[in-house]
Amino acid sequence: MTERLAHDHSLPVNGDHKNEYLFDADLLQSIFKQYLLKDHKLEGNIYDGKYLIRPLSLKDYDHGYIDLLRQLTECGKISYEEFQERFYEMKQCSNTYHILVIEDMNLNKKIIGTTTLVCEKKFIRQLGVRGRIEDVVIDNEYRGQQLGKLLVDLLTKLAKEKCDCYKISLECKDNLIGFYKQFGYDHEDKQNYLCQRFQK
Amino acid sequence: MTERLAHDHSLPVNGDHKNEYLFDADLLQSIFKQYLLKDHKLEGNIYDGKYLIRPLSLKDYDHGYIDLLRQLTECGKISYEEFQERFYEMKQCSNTYHILVIEDMNLNKKIIGTTTLVCEKKFIRQLGVRGRIEDVVIDNEYRGQQLGKLLVDLLTKLAKEKCDCYKISLECKDNLIGFYKQFGYDHEDKQNYLCQRFQK
Repeated sequence: MTERLAHDHSLPVNGDHKNEYLFDADLLQSIFKQYLLKDHKLEGNIYDGKYLIRPLSLKDYDHGYIDLLRQLTECGKISYEEFQERFYEMKQCSNTYHILVIEDMNLNKKIIGTTTLVCEKKFIRQLGVRGRIEDVVIDNEYRGQQLGKLLVDLLTKLAKEKCDCYKISLECKDNLIGFYKQFGYDHEDKQNYLCQRFQK
Repeated sequence: MTERLAHDHSLPVNGDHKNEYLFDADLLQSIFKQYLLKDHKLEGNIYDGKYLIRPLSLKDYDHGYIDLLRQLTECGKISYEEFQERFYEMKQCSNTYHILVIEDMNLNKKIIGTTTLVCEKKFIRQLGVRGRIEDVVIDNEYRGQQLGKLLVDLLTKLAKEKCDCYKISLECKDNLIGFYKQFGYDHEDKQNYLCQRFQK
């Protein structure tokens, strides 16, 4: 099935641009409206008159999306075909991968920020959904404009109100605890995060 | 697409039992062989002569799977149709949901243990995959037989060797840190786990 979808990249057709996005941009409309109450710089899906906020698109491969991720961690070499295949694998998992990007409308549509909300489907909690915030990165040259705050806040609201998550979590370094507390994230009593890494 | 798959529950056909499972049982074969070196009670997919180890099946709805989960946390009321729909939503997300169960072969195929490995697809780390161990539960009446250890060990190996995870993590209460350390899980320096819960 992945194979079949991987060859559907001739989409969008008939002027329908929705298919070019990783997830349905309509999900964001009411979330944008709420955010506006806190920060008047957001008008529709445009922030501060120059930044477009939208789901990841296949075209972002050509606009620096992977280079942006490299500011977070190693990415290796990724061809367009590999990017496309992974994009469609994610898209095939319905209501799961919500990658939000910020496009600099004045600089060749360069992608200058991104954050991911991943939703895990459960049987517990009445077929519940658990959200996780992953891979938060703002281009070095665009920091100090509250853009990271914008993305995390939008995706936290998306998790609660559109994805119906009963819980949302994230991992972060010590110096970012204060940043995330402003959105309602906090340590939980007696709860531990354990991890192991494998050599590749 | 979910809709289409949700009506495929007449499977398996032609004696092919693979389709009844949430994930491909063949993935487990080499993992079983490795585990055997540590614990001779495992023969093929049978542990201690009485417990069948296999992927979750739709039929497990009738064999106490949800009741088992209730020993972990609240599950609410879940109809067979809802269970089936969620099962196929998970199955549609290829290489993502690996729910392993233990069936008591001597007690009407009762499900007495389960653990989940969820694999998240990434763009970072050369299109990497990140694993998470979730929802570990062994029936109260079957504790003390190393069955939890068996499931966590099998899924940790699956994550590393078959799902190609670069990292695997879990959250646990203080009293279980020692249990998970035996499989290689540990705290990471300066790494924090933050969370928030939403009223439903």
